[in-house]
Amino acid sequence: MKVVIIGGVAAGPKAASRIIRLCADAEVTIVEKGEFLSYAGCGLPYYISGAVKEQKELMATPVGVVRDPVFFQNVKNVKVLNRTTARSIDRKNRKVTAVAQDGTEILLPYDKLVLATGADPVMPPIPGIALENVFKLKGVEDAEGIKAMMARNKAMDIVIVGGGLIGVEVAESLVKCGNRVAIVEMLPHILPMMDAEMARLVEKHFMSKGVKVLAGAKVLSIEGSGKVRSVKTDKGELAAEMVIVSTGVRPKTDLAVACGLEIGTTRAIKVDGQMRTSDPDIYAVGDCAEKKHLVTGKPCFIPLGSTANKEGRVAANSICGVKDEFPGVIGSLVCRVFDFTVAKTGLGERECAQHGIEIVTSIMPSHDKAHFMPEAKMMILKLVADAKTGKLLGAQAVGEGEGDKRIDVAATAISAGMTVGQLANLDLCYAPPYSPAMDNIIVAANIVRNKMGGLMEGISVEKLMSSVSAGNPPILLDVRGPSEIEKVKVKGAVNIPLGQLRKRVGELDKSKPVIAFCKISLRGYEAALILKKAGFKDVKVLDGGLLILPDEMLAK
Amino acid sequence: MKVVIIGGVAAGPKAASRIIRLCADAEVTIVEKGEFLSYAGCGLPYYISGAVKEQKELMATPVGVVRDPVFFQNVKNVKVLNRTTARSIDRKNRKVTAVAQDGTEILLPYDKLVLATGADPVMPPIPGIALENVFKLKGVEDAEGIKAMMARNKAMDIVIVGGGLIGVEVAESLVKCGNRVAIVEMLPHILPMMDAEMARLVEKHFMSKGVKVLAGAKVLSIEGSGKVRSVKTDKGELAAEMVIVSTGVRPKTDLAVACGLEIGTTRAIKVDGQMRTSDPDIYAVGDCAEKKHLVTGKPCFIPLGSTANKEGRVAANSICGVKDEFPGVIGSLVCRVFDFTVAKTGLGERECAQHGIEIVTSIMPSHDKAHFMPEAKMMILKLVADAKTGKLLGAQAVGEGEGDKRIDVAATAISAGMTVGQLANLDLCYAPPYSPAMDNIIVAANIVRNKMGGLMEGISVEKLMSSVSAGNPPILLDVRGPSEIEKVKVKGAVNIPLGQLRKRVGELDKSKPVIAFCKISLRGYEAALILKKAGFKDVKVLDGGLLILPDEMLAK
Repeated sequence: MKVVIIGGVAAGPKAASRIIRLCADAEVTIVEKGEFLSYAGCGLPYYISGAVKEQKELMATPVGVVRDPVFFQNVKNVKVLNRTTARSIDRKNRKVTAVAQDGTEILLPYDKLVLATGADPVMPPIPGIALENVFKLKGVEDAEGIKAMMARNKAMDIVIVGGGLIGVEVAESLVKCGNRVAIVEMLPHILPMMDAEMARLVEKHFMSKGVKVLAGAKVLSIEGSGKVRSVKTDKGELAAEMVIVSTGVRPKTDLAVACGLEIGTTRAIKVDGQMRTSDPDIYAVGDCAEKKHLVTGKPCFIPLGSTANKEGRVAANSICGVKDEFPGVIGSLVCRVFDFTVAKTGLGERECAQHGIEIVTSIMPSHDKAHFMPEAKMMILKLVADAKTGKLLGAQAVGEGEGDKRIDVAATAISAGMTVGQLANLDLCYAPPYSPAMDNIIVAANIVRNKMGGLMEGISVEKLMSSVSAGNPPILLDVRGPSEIEKVKVKGAVNIPLGQLRKRVGELDKSKPVIAFCKISLRGYEAALILKKAGFKDVKVLDGGLLILPDEMLAK
Repeated sequence: MKVVIIGGVAAGPKAASRIIRLCADAEVTIVEKGEFLSYAGCGLPYYISGAVKEQKELMATPVGVVRDPVFFQNVKNVKVLNRTTARSIDRKNRKVTAVAQDGTEILLPYDKLVLATGADPVMPPIPGIALENVFKLKGVEDAEGIKAMMARNKAMDIVIVGGGLIGVEVAESLVKCGNRVAIVEMLPHILPMMDAEMARLVEKHFMSKGVKVLAGAKVLSIEGSGKVRSVKTDKGELAAEMVIVSTGVRPKTDLAVACGLEIGTTRAIKVDGQMRTSDPDIYAVGDCAEKKHLVTGKPCFIPLGSTANKEGRVAANSICGVKDEFPGVIGSLVCRVFDFTVAKTGLGERECAQHGIEIVTSIMPSHDKAHFMPEAKMMILKLVADAKTGKLLGAQAVGEGEGDKRIDVAATAISAGMTVGQLANLDLCYAPPYSPAMDNIIVAANIVRNKMGGLMEGISVEKLMSSVSAGNPPILLDVRGPSEIEKVKVKGAVNIPLGQLRKRVGELDKSKPVIAFCKISLRGYEAALILKKAGFKDVKVLDGGLLILPDEMLAK
């Protein structure tokens, strides 16, 4: 059996290795346009920052063996043609035409073909984008260019166009190298896949590290003569000696389109559960292949190295006759932003609205470990559940605490179709250096259950802000203690510490709506119950409490 | 409605708070023998070490409010009688008789009664156990005694009798305070709930930190006159200025037994899914209540603060007419041992054997983050799956890497009844600072799948050792590279680096059984496939590779 694989970065080599393991006699050839194979593209921001010292670490095995064509030949028995570009696919005669760097044309017959052509950065049509020192960040070469320029220039002004995952990761790296960094994002907040109140916490953290964040800002032009000098946006001009454009990627499908393979609604190559394209002898894996979203059931384009590896394995199994199926993805992601871990899985509030799903949410700020442990860190966890069934649909975490752990648990629970009730009774590991006795995700699930059971009514910071700005503010009841109030006050709030509320409840006007809160809204919840018992009719708890309030609500 | 709760540490206060939230008019009284309420017993090892500075931090809310009787009255509207001992339960007349510290007898009528009496440390009948400076570690008072003695004596010899969770946690704390510590465990290895090869890694780590570990050793007596001087075991005598006995706990059921409630096979109070005892007006929650193991379906006694809190909530819901059910536990646990995280969920290999379950396992040593990240740490992950169905039954992690995260994912997957196939395709969060592109648990699940599919046959280090000691050793094929071999060799192994194996396969005798391995057995797996292709009939891969081999197999 002859197998040709186009693309040698992630899904391609994975498929190749697995095919040889299953069918030792298969002849497997990888065609790779670039020089480098199996390199960890996701590691580039950490190569730029210097955390990863050498380029070759990104393409070596854990014991330091570089995965070059000799490695693939000797260890895997896979032939690699690097610096070789696949030009066309002749489906009828099952042949790939490729061209080597020296111009030699190579004909590669196949029984099975695997497309692992990846994705290309989108370069938006901004005037000046072709100026010198405007970079994208896709391959090792881009990273080398950025590093070389940093080696020549200390403390540059750098503007990052696009505040998605790669944009925020590289922003951190560039600040760590001593540069002044600004992020410009067209959408209302950076990390547009996160919900607004969660993303704003990340923006605040960026600003605390000296990073300028311009969200909801359109780049009008990149200015300069020869070299870049500044970036003009509709919210002002930013000085820039370097610009990095990270406005997303687009699946690379030119070969697939040219040979008539079906393309999905997301512009990625349409595949089935075995990663087969519309031609049963051709597979597509990794960033060029469309994925199925397991929560919405709809196609999606979420290009990630973790998914690519799984898909490569499934394609290999199918090629070798081993029964397997790739179920799909749920949009799990994580990134580090200085001291913060930012993670998400499943659907956010906005995505649920887009899909017409009625939801109940909870926002739970708390320590990620037993609060008395010195290493405990704050973390804000948000859960999104189906209002009818209580099924968990999504989760997001932002903060210094270990959000990735809770989001991985949520991802597992979502994949299993668990309800918040099941989530709340999970037997998760507990010891003080690892989690509170009631893990954050368990408490967050219980808050959703309390809301679903009518025990608690929450209000989002967005809704609170809009009723404040509409000149129709409810009573804002802050039940924190005096020492907390001294540190930070909330504008317009009435303060009655929770311990005094039962006795002082008469001070509040029963006929008015009340929004109760504390630092994290746990005491706010207790307060709401006390007020309801005292006959208050309209009592809500501020979701997430003080910690989720924007700075303009606070007085220090 | 009058509710009396006996026990004010974890499950009791949780039930009390929840009852008041659901039924604001309920009269709830907590009877607590000791002085302290709602304290975090699990935090005591960290109070001993000084990581937790003040005793009151263990009984304060996250914002520092101590949960004393005044707090419960004002904030929760719950009456607390501390320093008050419940003496008897009159089920017919629904009354509890309690005695205050001053001898006053108190009669407490109830509509519903909640037993949250906890568990008591087992003090084995060792001669000399009553000597001065022999401590248990259950309550704040014990911790104060240990701390007071450490304040008077620097660098003591301390022997810990019992190498379970509390024993190992306190061992770490005592070493950090500058003492010389030895652990004596009667069973063949410390942390008896872990599988042998995993527990031995922890023993090795303890020894690297200067802790003496005597496993499979019986304590014969504690010697001394007045004060303790040494501990005599059947494996020798250990000097000891202090002894801590941590040989497990036993559910406190005297009140329940005296009033005729049904006791389970585990000696804990029998309860249903609503935490009701055999008397429908009496509930039992926390360490005194029996639990159901969700994997075996059988009763078990696993006392943990995390479970206690969930049970308290379920009992409260049932008392207040809110539908709920506590499903049970799966034995999830975690502890920190110096630089190691040690965690487990579900069943281990030995427990499966006891329950007659046929299993397939994998042992996967690897970095917990992308291997090129400087913060990546090694971690050894073991999965246990049902050989017939592929259902995940258990998982264990040992090492510096973040094992708690993977074990929490495994706990969620086990609760959902996931197979290793489903586990392997989970969409977990990926970014280099958080995990490898193929997360450790996904690779470990794929190893189980490879074994189930007949692609790989593993051999445990136990089986290898016994065939070596039976004088019948197979060919041990080490496929690591020269620079690795230079650092550490395996006694009696043949070395052919993986890259040369295809060419040098003729050097090995095809008729003999071969066990292939490398550092982690990934290259060992590749090697086994190459040998099979070359016609070798009996080829196995060493589960876990070099990293799991005991020191006596290694030559440095």
